[in-house]
Amino acid sequence: MFLERFRSEGLSHLSYVLGDAGEAFVVDPRRDVDDYLECAHRHGSRITRILETHRNEDYVVGSCELAARTGATIHHGAALGFRYGLPAGDGQCFESGDLRIEVLETPGHTDESLAFALYDLAGDERLPVAVFTGDTLFIGSTGRTDLLEDRATESAARLYDSVHGKLLPLGDQTLIYPAHGAGSVCGSGMAKREFSSIGYERGTNPVFRLDREAFIRHKLAERPYQPPYFRHMEQVNQEGPVIRGHPPTPLPLTATAFAEAMANGLWAVDVRSPEAIAGALIPGSLALPVEMISAFAGWFLPDGIEIGLIADRYGDVEEAVRRLYRLGYDRIDARLDDGLHGWEVTGRPYQTVPPIHASALKERMESGTPFTLLDVRGRSEIATAALPGATEIYLGELPGALDRIPPERPITTFCGSGRRSIIAASLLLRAGFDQVEICLGSMEACKAVGCPIERRS
Amino acid sequence: MFLERFRSEGLSHLSYVLGDAGEAFVVDPRRDVDDYLECAHRHGSRITRILETHRNEDYVVGSCELAARTGATIHHGAALGFRYGLPAGDGQCFESGDLRIEVLETPGHTDESLAFALYDLAGDERLPVAVFTGDTLFIGSTGRTDLLEDRATESAARLYDSVHGKLLPLGDQTLIYPAHGAGSVCGSGMAKREFSSIGYERGTNPVFRLDREAFIRHKLAERPYQPPYFRHMEQVNQEGPVIRGHPPTPLPLTATAFAEAMANGLWAVDVRSPEAIAGALIPGSLALPVEMISAFAGWFLPDGIEIGLIADRYGDVEEAVRRLYRLGYDRIDARLDDGLHGWEVTGRPYQTVPPIHASALKERMESGTPFTLLDVRGRSEIATAALPGATEIYLGELPGALDRIPPERPITTFCGSGRRSIIAASLLLRAGFDQVEICLGSMEACKAVGCPIERRS
Amino acid sequence: MFLERFRSEGLSHLSYVLGDAGEAFVVDPRRDVDDYLECAHRHGSRITRILETHRNEDYVVGSCELAARTGATIHHGAALGFRYGLPAGDGQCFESGDLRIEVLETPGHTDESLAFALYDLAGDERLPVAVFTGDTLFIGSTGRTDLLEDRATESAARLYDSVHGKLLPLGDQTLIYPAHGAGSVCGSGMAKREFSSIGYERGTNPVFRLDREAFIRHKLAERPYQPPYFRHMEQVNQEGPVIRGHPPTPLPLTATAFAEAMANGLWAVDVRSPEAIAGALIPGSLALPVEMISAFAGWFLPDGIEIGLIADRYGDVEEAVRRLYRLGYDRIDARLDDGLHGWEVTGRPYQTVPPIHASALKERMESGTPFTLLDVRGRSEIATAALPGATEIYLGELPGALDRIPPERPITTFCGSGRRSIIAASLLLRAGFDQVEICLGSMEACKAVGCPIERRS
Amino acid sequence: MFLERFRSEGLSHLSYVLGDAGEAFVVDPRRDVDDYLECAHRHGSRITRILETHRNEDYVVGSCELAARTGATIHHGAALGFRYGLPAGDGQCFESGDLRIEVLETPGHTDESLAFALYDLAGDERLPVAVFTGDTLFIGSTGRTDLLEDRATESAARLYDSVHGKLLPLGDQTLIYPAHGAGSVCGSGMAKREFSSIGYERGTNPVFRLDREAFIRHKLAERPYQPPYFRHMEQVNQEGPVIRGHPPTPLPLTATAFAEAMANGLWAVDVRSPEAIAGALIPGSLALPVEMISAFAGWFLPDGIEIGLIADRYGDVEEAVRRLYRLGYDRIDARLDDGLHGWEVTGRPYQTVPPIHASALKERMESGTPFTLLDVRGRSEIATAALPGATEIYLGELPGALDRIPPERPITTFCGSGRRSIIAASLLLRAGFDQVEICLGSMEACKAVGCPIERRS
Repeated sequence: MFLERFRSEGLSHLSYVLGDAGEAFVVDPRRDVDDYLECAHRHGSRITRILETHRNEDYVVGSCELAARTGATIHHGAALGFRYGLPAGDGQCFESGDLRIEVLETPGHTDESLAFALYDLAGDERLPVAVFTGDTLFIGSTGRTDLLEDRATESAARLYDSVHGKLLPLGDQTLIYPAHGAGSVCGSGMAKREFSSIGYERGTNPVFRLDREAFIRHKLAERPYQPPYFRHMEQVNQEGPVIRGHPPTPLPLTATAFAEAMANGLWAVDVRSPEAIAGALIPGSLALPVEMISAFAGWFLPDGIEIGLIADRYGDVEEAVRRLYRLGYDRIDARLDDGLHGWEVTGRPYQTVPPIHASALKERMESGTPFTLLDVRGRSEIATAALPGATEIYLGELPGALDRIPPERPITTFCGSGRRSIIAASLLLRAGFDQVEICLGSMEACKAVGCPIERRS
Repeated sequence: MFLERFRSEGLSHLSYVLGDAGEAFVVDPRRDVDDYLECAHRHGSRITRILETHRNEDYVVGSCELAARTGATIHHGAALGFRYGLPAGDGQCFESGDLRIEVLETPGHTDESLAFALYDLAGDERLPVAVFTGDTLFIGSTGRTDLLEDRATESAARLYDSVHGKLLPLGDQTLIYPAHGAGSVCGSGMAKREFSSIGYERGTNPVFRLDREAFIRHKLAERPYQPPYFRHMEQVNQEGPVIRGHPPTPLPLTATAFAEAMANGLWAVDVRSPEAIAGALIPGSLALPVEMISAFAGWFLPDGIEIGLIADRYGDVEEAVRRLYRLGYDRIDARLDDGLHGWEVTGRPYQTVPPIHASALKERMESGTPFTLLDVRGRSEIATAALPGATEIYLGELPGALDRIPPERPITTFCGSGRRSIIAASLLLRAGFDQVEICLGSMEACKAVGCPIERRS
Repeated sequence: MFLERFRSEGLSHLSYVLGDAGEAFVVDPRRDVDDYLECAHRHGSRITRILETHRNEDYVVGSCELAARTGATIHHGAALGFRYGLPAGDGQCFESGDLRIEVLETPGHTDESLAFALYDLAGDERLPVAVFTGDTLFIGSTGRTDLLEDRATESAARLYDSVHGKLLPLGDQTLIYPAHGAGSVCGSGMAKREFSSIGYERGTNPVFRLDREAFIRHKLAERPYQPPYFRHMEQVNQEGPVIRGHPPTPLPLTATAFAEAMANGLWAVDVRSPEAIAGALIPGSLALPVEMISAFAGWFLPDGIEIGLIADRYGDVEEAVRRLYRLGYDRIDARLDDGLHGWEVTGRPYQTVPPIHASALKERMESGTPFTLLDVRGRSEIATAALPGATEIYLGELPGALDRIPPERPITTFCGSGRRSIIAASLLLRAGFDQVEICLGSMEACKAVGCPIERRS
Repeated sequence: MFLERFRSEGLSHLSYVLGDAGEAFVVDPRRDVDDYLECAHRHGSRITRILETHRNEDYVVGSCELAARTGATIHHGAALGFRYGLPAGDGQCFESGDLRIEVLETPGHTDESLAFALYDLAGDERLPVAVFTGDTLFIGSTGRTDLLEDRATESAARLYDSVHGKLLPLGDQTLIYPAHGAGSVCGSGMAKREFSSIGYERGTNPVFRLDREAFIRHKLAERPYQPPYFRHMEQVNQEGPVIRGHPPTPLPLTATAFAEAMANGLWAVDVRSPEAIAGALIPGSLALPVEMISAFAGWFLPDGIEIGLIADRYGDVEEAVRRLYRLGYDRIDARLDDGLHGWEVTGRPYQTVPPIHASALKERMESGTPFTLLDVRGRSEIATAALPGATEIYLGELPGALDRIPPERPITTFCGSGRRSIIAASLLLRAGFDQVEICLGSMEACKAVGCPIERRS
């Protein structure tokens, strides 16, 4: 029996291939499926089943893509009307060799959420070895329960009941394999560690340490942000995504051709490092350092647009494509040849975002210099550490809140460590603000240099 | 906090890199250390500690090699006088960031055996998440306790006490990470699955299901074979292996040069498939299909010899080198250019090993045709399924037992599925026997075609 | 300006990517186009043109596949009615930066054959640096002129005139980049070396060392074999191959499922080494060692069949798929799990092909033992070295000439070094012959051991 | 017969593996020799000879490293007293199979320079197919003749005579394989194309288009810069470099540890893009974008120093190590963990280099704003296009000419396109200048926006 985990960086999405006796099952595949095929081959197995723990909202699920390549059957929860695959429910089993998967209905995160308990028939056929928990139970946390907006309380309660009624009875010895790790937008408070057991969670996870009422209050208090592309993803994953075969291949454009394409509607997305973007960026481009794509592309890039990438290295282009493709962006047709250097040598204009050091920020705040300190962190981060006098607008909501920012004063963008700040700076430049600075290091540096910090909760 | 497992195929050896906050620890590294370095880099970590669960007897440990590349400190059990590294014992802790490792002395498999409990300080600092169990506790089994030959009973008792006194108290929730998986010569009865927890083992592993006396009897009954290279490995790993930097690079030799080198003492090792070797092999060569190297090279290849490989593909040469190098063979200087084809076209003699199908074997046995059926499986395999009338000599012990085989009759080599049989066939040919056949499929095929099979236990 | 060559092993097909100033041209692409895309990316170029030297007959051209991925324009000779791309002719130029390609019509191998002269405008814009010669001029040889069967004399004459009228005038300094190297079925007598110039060819190539009449006689005497799939390839390449996106992924089948699929029409193709196949092969399978696929699959595997592979290593499966896919086989859906070992352990029957050493063959021939020595080499090979008394049937033509082989006598298959012999042996076994042996080493070994050899020309 | 070329980016160094019949020769290997070993293996060959065209001055030659791995014999010119290898001279031949290499003494670039003519004995054994020309004849150019400083005229004359007396007689058909391509510091004016023949060069290369006297004047006028590390490289390559086995592995350091190491003498080398460095750089660090390492590390980094790298991606660390290692830097022990982001979050100070657009530069020049425009291009570049009023100091010579720059005025660094400017800016910051700006795009952008440009020659 084998089991391999696949991590999609950025999304912090975890998928799994498990198998025995020549068959393999894949849990929650992503859209670029080559790694699963390679894994199955290495183990001499054919992929026969694809198990979805739930309809995902944060990425395009790869089930249809993988089924097209392998002929495997797709299974998902019966409580939602999928346009593909077969419904599965409590007690249903899938076996191959010594491997047995038993389906558990675990509503809460979504109505149709499933978990899959794993048994090794060569060991003890009644004692589960592991469980794939989807977005129901994370390591150190639980899945968000705000997606069904008018039923948040009910969802939290159902999730609590699923965990206590379905997962806890599996026993302390049961290893847990969730669908996300730390950094995912599908939950908060996940441990950075990616291995645990029911027994360990029982000692540490809020879902076990709080009683039912307290847990529901805890979940209602979480209020995670919901990127606008979630609704589109839900629809796509319910209907079954279009099969593409492979990610798009962006072709190089000269600076002249790239500028022309931008004039014709191409979205220029700059995936370089925050420092490089601060050094020089193309007017009208959107800053999205490659590590930030998974978390923020869905806030700013509309579905269906044509995208042109700006990168220093071709490796970054490939990584950016992979991340955008997983979010459903299929038209990534261009990249700026020779990166920003190719642009500079043509004499075309570029902008810069002057960096402000945390010490300089501190001085400014102390001296009362008029400027807007724009903090784009989320409400939970701000609650624990805020700078006095800052204008607080969450990054994802910035495009709709620009009228809160006075255009005549310098604006210093600010976040946790400086990465989101460069995105904010580019959004402001795109919107016509012309005195935009960035605080590299942001809150972490502010703490280090002794800025006055407020704790609100 | 990250944790990655590295599997050395053939040895079924498992090593681990774990880390947090910029530091990484490596548990039981193998000699080719590049994968550990790459892993640490990927996580932005420097390897600062190397933790040995015990002095290994089945492969050359990579601690010194890795320390030379990284400056890391080596830690191992205090109960043995290592010529390198630092002694560690009960209660000692190693920390970085949220990661804490606590040393547990677990004598039994060897006197100086250690286990390493892992805590996540960001979770519950008193509840272990996992434990690295070395050769003390395997998944579904325990380490062999026969290595200290005159103290086998005592060793079994100590191992039992270590498991019950040190590991069981960690709690059901504790994941276990052993040093070997199924297929290793360091134990028997391991599960094919490579993930488990203390709680799961409590339900399935003999060390928990038997009482102390019964467990000791169980271990004494195991009687695993001990390849002769174990003693050499123990010495090497106690003194600290020579640092090589990288595996050797075998250079191609023409058939003429290869034949000449054989005449001058080169050991020709044929790593092709059993069928290919049966089809044609070089007189004097030793058959060792690449999958069989880790288990059997140590029985037949003396320490310090010069080795020349015979392979179909360069990929097999590389895999063979990797496997031999891990066992301490450093002089793998040659390979036969163009494989056996390069030999055949020179008109040099080759031998063949005619395959006998299980059905033909059955007919022969029924008809009383005079021949030697040489079964080279181990005693535990033979106990559960034997062919009547077979001459039973364990493969590893065959070179010392050739006088038990009458030279005038045809010999059919036989094992579990045919792979060990080809090794046996080549040993017989090397020893001058000239009527040597192989039963491809061997016992598995015999069962399928309905040969009469005895069960002795 | 850059230029990279891509070699398709087996086909000995050479394709090229060249470019400058952000554009790249591809000459004669193969069907699996990823390498071209990667090359263009590495040079920061987009592929804008695809240049075909002629309608190929020996592999599926990748022009349409590549155009679909890049939007590039396809150009080929005007003398044939292609169903895709644009016609090109004498004097037409394609430029990007300092790179200029000039089209030269060079009929002979086919009517629509083109060559492409390359100029570097940064050097001397009148002096060609290199020329892509397609199948017109090879290194040390010329393309076959027998494809237009009733116009062989005319074709040879036209090729001679093209070389002398179009290529020779380019000058001695011109490097030549042909579409095939040694080992291709598109010509014979090519040098093993893959670099040359017009000047070097002028000193060594028959097309320059013979006068027109002698050259025509030389070409008419060549009489290369024509695999039956050529006609199909010509049609496919004229009409434009179907776009697949990527090669098929064969899925593993257990021996039971594989046997069942064979019963339902699956063609079992065994790509292992000749020695391994000789050791044991599945009844009904076709032996095609992976190196022999490109040369012989087209003789024995009908278009459109479903193929199941038998291999020792997954790397060989991938290589076999690549080679079959380039020949137009798209339905390679299965592979036997665990190779032949997986078959043997089920007790299913297998066959063997006993090897006969060249010395034994010599003895047999001297002693007059009755047997059929089946020599499957081509007529040109046999002309220079034949064994007396052999039955000579070219391998490609064997299936249609089985009635020339007496079934009651043992048959020893024989070729240059033993590789084609194993294919012949499997064809005989498939046809019901039951006493089939193979002479490993074949003619090369026979020469080495001093067999009597006749020279007929 | 096979021939493969290996390009060392940055150095624009070309090395070659060629072989036949199981042996391979390597011409001018670099220090990281794995690629040569892999190539030889792929062709089933053992490397038996290493041919050095001359004692290199711009990189550490890999001959000793490769000989240690393979046992190959090293050959080089007899006119210099090497401490390793064997002397070779006119008429000496090295053969394997159909491959014959003939040694030609071609003094000029250095006294002991050799060329190696290649013959294919299967073709015409008197007609050379190709020649390895070392630094004697490049494509479009010739090797520098200024290295023997007091004998520059004699060297130019000897090179002319070598080319005309030894290479030209090989004939127009001879392909040429030089030791460097465009971008190397070992010559100037090389074509960007990397394939040519004696015949093509005869039509385009100055060494053939000028008469002897004119050529000598031409070479004396070249006056290429000589990085200070050349003398060290010459000594190293004459004595035989120390064998390392593999490049160093830089280990990650936290910002705190990195800062401490800098205080203890670590040289911080920032290999990020010019824009990223301009955005934020560590005080005291040296900017060396990864593409600029090969050309400029030898000017600024003393032999024997300990180096710490600052990079965005681990891939850049690896590329930087490769490039530095080839130049003889062995102590690259550290890298800043998490790149500059890891530094920023600690609140440590960073500097910035504000970018000045070419248009702004133009305005400044027109308005007479007082500032220093520091042009760090080479004299030949400045000769063809200069900005009026610029202070011209070649980048390599900047550290010794800082007293020419007034410290009180802003300094705008300027070069061809902005890459060297960032190096200059970091040198100025290190030297204590505090008003340092960079003109991204530099001369190319200035041309595009219409700055006034002087042509001096």
